[in-house]
Amino acid sequence: MLKDLGEFGFIDRISSLCKTHGNDVIRGIGDDCAIIKISPDENLLITTDMMVERVHFLVNLQTAHSIGAKALAVNLSDIAACGGTPKQAFVSIAIPDCFDVIWLEDLYRGISELAAEFEVDILGGDTTRSLTDMVINILVTGFTKNNETLFRNGAHDGDIIAVSGHLGYSAAGLELLRNSSNSSDQIYAPLLDAHLKPKPHVGVGRILARSQACNAAIDISDGLSSDLGHVCKQSGLGATIFEEMLPLSEALTQAALELSADPMEWILNGGEDYVLLAAIRSEEFAKVKLAVTEAGADLIEIGRFVSGSEMKLIKKSGMVFDIFPKGWDHFRA
Amino acid sequence: MLKDLGEFGFIDRISSLCKTHGNDVIRGIGDDCAIIKISPDENLLITTDMMVERVHFLVNLQTAHSIGAKALAVNLSDIAACGGTPKQAFVSIAIPDCFDVIWLEDLYRGISELAAEFEVDILGGDTTRSLTDMVINILVTGFTKNNETLFRNGAHDGDIIAVSGHLGYSAAGLELLRNSSNSSDQIYAPLLDAHLKPKPHVGVGRILARSQACNAAIDISDGLSSDLGHVCKQSGLGATIFEEMLPLSEALTQAALELSADPMEWILNGGEDYVLLAAIRSEEFAKVKLAVTEAGADLIEIGRFVSGSEMKLIKKSGMVFDIFPKGWDHFRA
Repeated sequence: MLKDLGEFGFIDRISSLCKTHGNDVIRGIGDDCAIIKISPDENLLITTDMMVERVHFLVNLQTAHSIGAKALAVNLSDIAACGGTPKQAFVSIAIPDCFDVIWLEDLYRGISELAAEFEVDILGGDTTRSLTDMVINILVTGFTKNNETLFRNGAHDGDIIAVSGHLGYSAAGLELLRNSSNSSDQIYAPLLDAHLKPKPHVGVGRILARSQACNAAIDISDGLSSDLGHVCKQSGLGATIFEEMLPLSEALTQAALELSADPMEWILNGGEDYVLLAAIRSEEFAKVKLAVTEAGADLIEIGRFVSGSEMKLIKKSGMVFDIFPKGWDHFRA
Repeated sequence: MLKDLGEFGFIDRISSLCKTHGNDVIRGIGDDCAIIKISPDENLLITTDMMVERVHFLVNLQTAHSIGAKALAVNLSDIAACGGTPKQAFVSIAIPDCFDVIWLEDLYRGISELAAEFEVDILGGDTTRSLTDMVINILVTGFTKNNETLFRNGAHDGDIIAVSGHLGYSAAGLELLRNSSNSSDQIYAPLLDAHLKPKPHVGVGRILARSQACNAAIDISDGLSSDLGHVCKQSGLGATIFEEMLPLSEALTQAALELSADPMEWILNGGEDYVLLAAIRSEEFAKVKLAVTEAGADLIEIGRFVSGSEMKLIKKSGMVFDIFPKGWDHFRA
């Protein structure tokens, strides 16, 4: 059964059916984007994400505008993880009869406004009917210079593990929307925004790529434990995360208290953060962090890549816990 | 309501939200592919199609293998219509819990075998869960030389209208599958194959593109009346189709008799033919037809582009009928 195999097990199975590649293919299945050489010094990046009603979004919890914007944002985040500049978007949508044109225009406005912010052209797609749930598939192309392309698999032993923003906010925001009557409290606004209006970290990705000090990167979509696990596995390394370095805001703490939840669970396994996780050469970290900060963004050290294959969390108490990839798996959810 | 607006009305509405384009964009929404200049003499083609269970396919009428192959074929057909060579495919799929891994592997085998036939690399996609229907979205990239790119809008008054294969076969095949207990009769095999295993006419598209005699092309996915209508509208022309030139086989005639259907309805409005329709300079038609025939394919003259904006059908009796675009519209279906 698919449930037993899990999403990544299934992807492994089908990948084995799809393994012939042309010489121009730098990366196929298994990175944030497919990476294709189109000239001696330029690469084409392609990424795609499918969002299904009632699986990825609920029309009673979100506006059409925010659903559209998020469907694009998650793809821009993949381009960011490869250090690229996004260029074009293609929007396929299956629409049940019950959606009206005004709602759909609001959805497309959400897509096109975010696209305009990143100078992305919407060049096509497909519109069709669905008998039950709405399904939105967006594909985004981007470009990078050949020597400014970030992969998942380049981390070195000793590299600093850094993230470009808060973790767990999106998961907390979703829980608040679902289970709290106080979700409109001003203090929770950053958590709700993280879930409803994630901002892809394209600028940070470009800075990391140009720095020549970033050995690997990924965007955190499935959760820190899962996505850090991808980088570890593909780089042949382990990782140590320090609890005291993980950003923990008052908003997150208060939400956890109100919902009787463990904020560390959100941080490690929540997913949908859409911040970048990067492996940065330690001797150059200060310089890279300065460049990111000067651009008005964040780069927060949370740990180190180490030899071996295990991921560990060092608690403030000094106790050591294993981290297992427990982020989002669509077929086991 | 979406139903009143129709698929093409809706596309017009959302296109107006997506009209900013970079200088590198040769075609955005409104052709078979988006066409992007990536070097002085080369264009990147991108096309995408979404197939929804119970709207585009029925798992009790088709094998997983044929559903997968067709989901790719319809995209390769769009690349063919632009005269391109397909290169990469991206497969997004939303899977309900009830599908098992064996079935899904057969689906991917259908995709990957057809991909291998056309030397297309499957480089990624997305796998996710659906609560009800399966949804498959495939996107295909391709390349053309800048001076060998075919558009919908270049037809000239007097150009020959030619198609690269039979029309109406797919619609007849679907009707047989649905309503005939004799659908396994050998005579019907080409009709069923046209519906279940359409072969994209990539080779013909390349010959047309290289000929420098093809002024416009489209693939017939929605139906002759609808897709010829697109070329007429975008070229500012009308068209005359001669009934006596339309290929009408014994298989199609027999299926129509058995199902009490009008074969001309299938030919004009059936859709899903995935043959190419081309506007070819009349003085070079014989040469182009010879090149296509020598490659083992067909090119059948069915009429002429004419000035004006109307599409006419000249019956064998000499009577003249208007042709209105009545092919497939997902929201009016």
